[in-house]
Amino acid sequence: MTFHSMWASLLPIGRSGASGGYRRFAWTPADGECRLWFQAQAEARGLFYEVDRNGNQWAWLGDPSRGDAVVTGSHLDSVPDGGAFDGPLGVVSAFAALDELRRREVSFARPFGIVNFGDEEGARFGLACVGSRLAAGQLSVADAHGLRDADGVSLPQAMEKAGQDPSGIGADPERLSRIGAFVELHIEQGVALGETPHAVGVASAIWPHGRWRFDFRGEANHAGTTRMEDRRDPMLTYANTVLSARKKAAQVGARATFGKVAVEPNGVNAIPSLVRGWLDSRAASDEALSALVGDIERAALERAGRDGTSVAVTRESFTPVIEFEHGLRDRLAARLGGVPLLPTGAGHDAGILAGSVPTAMLYVRNPTGVSHSPAEAASEDDCVAGVLALADVLEELACAPSPSGA
Amino acid sequence: MTFHSMWASLLPIGRSGASGGYRRFAWTPADGECRLWFQAQAEARGLFYEVDRNGNQWAWLGDPSRGDAVVTGSHLDSVPDGGAFDGPLGVVSAFAALDELRRREVSFARPFGIVNFGDEEGARFGLACVGSRLAAGQLSVADAHGLRDADGVSLPQAMEKAGQDPSGIGADPERLSRIGAFVELHIEQGVALGETPHAVGVASAIWPHGRWRFDFRGEANHAGTTRMEDRRDPMLTYANTVLSARKKAAQVGARATFGKVAVEPNGVNAIPSLVRGWLDSRAASDEALSALVGDIERAALERAGRDGTSVAVTRESFTPVIEFEHGLRDRLAARLGGVPLLPTGAGHDAGILAGSVPTAMLYVRNPTGVSHSPAEAASEDDCVAGVLALADVLEELACAPSPSGA
Repeated sequence: MTFHSMWASLLPIGRSGASGGYRRFAWTPADGECRLWFQAQAEARGLFYEVDRNGNQWAWLGDPSRGDAVVTGSHLDSVPDGGAFDGPLGVVSAFAALDELRRREVSFARPFGIVNFGDEEGARFGLACVGSRLAAGQLSVADAHGLRDADGVSLPQAMEKAGQDPSGIGADPERLSRIGAFVELHIEQGVALGETPHAVGVASAIWPHGRWRFDFRGEANHAGTTRMEDRRDPMLTYANTVLSARKKAAQVGARATFGKVAVEPNGVNAIPSLVRGWLDSRAASDEALSALVGDIERAALERAGRDGTSVAVTRESFTPVIEFEHGLRDRLAARLGGVPLLPTGAGHDAGILAGSVPTAMLYVRNPTGVSHSPAEAASEDDCVAGVLALADVLEELACAPSPSGA
Repeated sequence: MTFHSMWASLLPIGRSGASGGYRRFAWTPADGECRLWFQAQAEARGLFYEVDRNGNQWAWLGDPSRGDAVVTGSHLDSVPDGGAFDGPLGVVSAFAALDELRRREVSFARPFGIVNFGDEEGARFGLACVGSRLAAGQLSVADAHGLRDADGVSLPQAMEKAGQDPSGIGADPERLSRIGAFVELHIEQGVALGETPHAVGVASAIWPHGRWRFDFRGEANHAGTTRMEDRRDPMLTYANTVLSARKKAAQVGARATFGKVAVEPNGVNAIPSLVRGWLDSRAASDEALSALVGDIERAALERAGRDGTSVAVTRESFTPVIEFEHGLRDRLAARLGGVPLLPTGAGHDAGILAGSVPTAMLYVRNPTGVSHSPAEAASEDDCVAGVLALADVLEELACAPSPSGA
């Protein structure tokens, strides 16, 4: 199958007619269809197909128990109304790169694997990278059992319903120890490559990332009768904090977003008693992120003083900076002819594995820069360039030098 | 029964142990208990008790069909987690004022009635003053049939379930034509009286009032990877509009509130595609209100231009200014010894009736100024002063001059 026909066969699964976006949430029927697609691709190529204890799918060429395997892949699930590329591009390109390596008639010197990690986006259970976190021991079995979706269905219940035995979930060091290198290809989430002549780049690092809940509290009151000067309106403090976060993040080239908000009582004619806003923030270093969030918090407190409101900030999650292994990173960039090294603000399975396995990432140019939205895009030419670049680095890592030395 | 014991008997009904506020929503069991309380108070005083076709409760002394009746009362339902006074103070004070008039041994020259209007707050079906609107022909039967609560229960279904036949709902001009004057006593929703030596004031007007929905649209994107300068984030436009509304309303002594907001997709790591905010605004005149909302809309559009977002504004409701009849208003203020005349930003059944019947309102001092919240308050002394003031104006309106001329 060509890249084009593989891509076309995956495209209709889990697509919303209304939004044009994807709703492939972990362990739902749409996710199950994607998983059947993966299995079919593996079997069509004569690969050894298996599902691990955490629900991650693997397709093997050669015996992985020999160790020092080279693995590539990504995920097939999506955020709500996500684009077609975030995740699937890395899986489709993995199969297409294997086809390209076979076309080149290379000899594999090491076991070679393709992986689809389960539940990367966390759209259903609220935690990203569940499949890789479990395997890497970065999510405890107890915490995994506590994950529930919006309908109260637990992760083990959802796995069971999808035909995946949940009884063995948990750290899988033996499996990860067989992997000598992991390379994830991903659509770029941003426009850095769009400003270069390169269709492909190599990841340098994943920015540190955290989520903070800001609880702005004031006094519920009647919107029609309470004079503006008598109010203690937490919506004002929230609004000012949104604008402060924007300004301060732009000043230091970082990211700060209030994308989720909950209001009580949320009535048209009621001054709120509580506005709860969640800050997602990321920056180039742990120190820069701490400084930025501290600045935003101070601005919120200062404004709360003026509004007669209060603000309480709770850190809900924090992931320190992840530097991809420099040796592998530089070797791949050199193999690809000196392509750009790019940091990213997005989390990935590769970021989880980087703690256990030498790991690298390739990015494919996204002309819109948009992701987590149907507007996410990549040209077919750039996708093919991505496949060839992935084939090049896999050949570099997994194959015996060709007799000609080319 | 004294005011105190009547008040105490009503106090436990529909009170939330968690918030200390009231949840007496129309046609629910808590509302039904309040209605039984009303019926018991009427019967204990030998009044003729009836429920009209729209579910409003009436208690009559004398035959209302004689016409030119004097009516007082308010409502017993509440907003979510409302205070104890908004509504009930007017009903309890009505019965207490009748007791006071009997103690004074006055002679009633005209029929006298006490009313509890149904569903004043609109907490369940989203429209305020349903009982008085229906009676006054300001809500069509078709529109009333279209009202549904959050569970999809229609108003007629809710009435039927509460034992109230809904088949006759609609305009009731014959009933309203019997009323020569309506006086509603209400807790003040604001602190204007608190700045005077007066426990009671008289309403001058109800400010014009409208609701506008602002749809701020931008581009959904990844909160971690999208540079601040590449975003089209409608949360910024919303936040700036909230602050603009506050500033402009304060400048002109009017009211502007964003108390309700809905975000799509409302994910912590997603720049929103849509932020929908509802503006509640009120001002002293129709012209002042139009000018204020126009200013807020222009500020939103200006900011949207800078954020790369769009804003669309839809007027969802508008009620013009209601001036209470000047003759009646001035007569009551004079009878009470020159108490303050106060405008209000809140809607009331009295505002609905003012289109059909000579209508007036009395306000009782609220030291917190807070309403629609458990913090709403009135001292017992001020409540008793309110009862005596109401008795004075009812005596003025309904009774033959006393032989002594006192």
